[in-house]
Amino acid sequence: MNAIENSPLARKLMAFVALSAGELAVLERLHQRRRTFAAGRDLVHQGQPEQAAYILSEGWVCSYKIQPDGSRQIVDFQIPGDFLGLRSVLLQASDHSIEPIMQIEAAEVLADDLITAFAETPRLAMAILWAASRDEAMVVEHLVGLGRRDADERMAHFLLELGARLELVGMGSKSGYDCPLTQYHLADALGLSAVHVNRVLRQLREDGLATFRAGKVTFDNYDRLVALAEFDPAYLDQARPFLK
Amino acid sequence: MNAIENSPLARKLMAFVALSAGELAVLERLHQRRRTFAAGRDLVHQGQPEQAAYILSEGWVCSYKIQPDGSRQIVDFQIPGDFLGLRSVLLQASDHSIEPIMQIEAAEVLADDLITAFAETPRLAMAILWAASRDEAMVVEHLVGLGRRDADERMAHFLLELGARLELVGMGSKSGYDCPLTQYHLADALGLSAVHVNRVLRQLREDGLATFRAGKVTFDNYDRLVALAEFDPAYLDQARPFLK
Repeated sequence: MNAIENSPLARKLMAFVALSAGELAVLERLHQRRRTFAAGRDLVHQGQPEQAAYILSEGWVCSYKIQPDGSRQIVDFQIPGDFLGLRSVLLQASDHSIEPIMQIEAAEVLADDLITAFAETPRLAMAILWAASRDEAMVVEHLVGLGRRDADERMAHFLLELGARLELVGMGSKSGYDCPLTQYHLADALGLSAVHVNRVLRQLREDGLATFRAGKVTFDNYDRLVALAEFDPAYLDQARPFLK
Repeated sequence: MNAIENSPLARKLMAFVALSAGELAVLERLHQRRRTFAAGRDLVHQGQPEQAAYILSEGWVCSYKIQPDGSRQIVDFQIPGDFLGLRSVLLQASDHSIEPIMQIEAAEVLADDLITAFAETPRLAMAILWAASRDEAMVVEHLVGLGRRDADERMAHFLLELGARLELVGMGSKSGYDCPLTQYHLADALGLSAVHVNRVLRQLREDGLATFRAGKVTFDNYDRLVALAEFDPAYLDQARPFLK
């Protein structure tokens, strides 16, 4: 069994604050109710009251909203080290649904667990608030980018953001990363048709920028891809520790 | 001078948790560095390192992002009781700018003030995390709505959301509210031209749904406006106290 400091969440939070042994012990306790979930079965339903939050330790999930007309809009994907439903554990009813893309492992966290952990270590509370701030900064970046970026730029930005997030938890690099998403996931998240996604990916590949094939994203020319997307990772705030 | 429990922030947080006298005292201390800011002068600049957060007590501000091409996209407006830059106080550099729409009063809050307050009262920490969750739920709702709602529905949804937020802090009702925004603000926030905004507002007025004139929004037929916008305020989570 891995030590808690190697867990994806600890690796992520350590980009913000150097957690002490005591703080890591509190974080470990938040991981105690480990659960396995199958692909395609919602962990959290939109409108569900009093649901738990989860710390994702293995696998990927997508968060989505069902529209009044029944259509589905993917808001974002979560990767190991991300909280699932952290926003909703404090809201009376979840404002979104969460579905595993593959079999996942996640630790269940109740509102009371958070209150207890916060009481013991306010620095951990700040680190979790930082992670929530970063999640919100991503949604804001997506909102602002939606009207401004064309399909190529949007795809490039999306692949680069995912790469940066995965690198933070040791699952990606400037060469690329393993990616379980289908073209349907990409289409739902980027507001494109599956045919359009296919065309955009082919263009990126033919231009020698990036290749997404057989569950793997390869950055063929990282710097040119960054230039195309005008990708500035400052909003991901993963450059250095802040609180010693 | 008003008691702290009548402050807009206390009124808002009380929708989530019944704050004790001790917790209100901690909240009062967060208000101690009161500042006045003039209209049109940024409180926070995008890219600025180590800025403070603020608790807005009087007046309205807008949060915006400057795009690489120099254009400006309004992300949202903040009203009394909202945190300004709470997300950025934990990020190394602010991901957005904040500009007062009118002269405002706001209390400066540093990261250390938050850590101290969180250490004293984890319930207040949870309440602030709740407010941050609610802010994120709004951005997600805007993101999802952007592709789905036409101009009339987007305007109706925007006016209703603002009304619900203002009602929570005692500044609005189902009849309407005072609103200092110009048509240029509405245009920048809703991704419409000023001419289009003007046309949409005229349509809502002629249909007997809502009137925005002379700094005042009047809901002429609240229920029909809700139906037009398919406005479900669940994501604002302001229905009842959660933690006793």
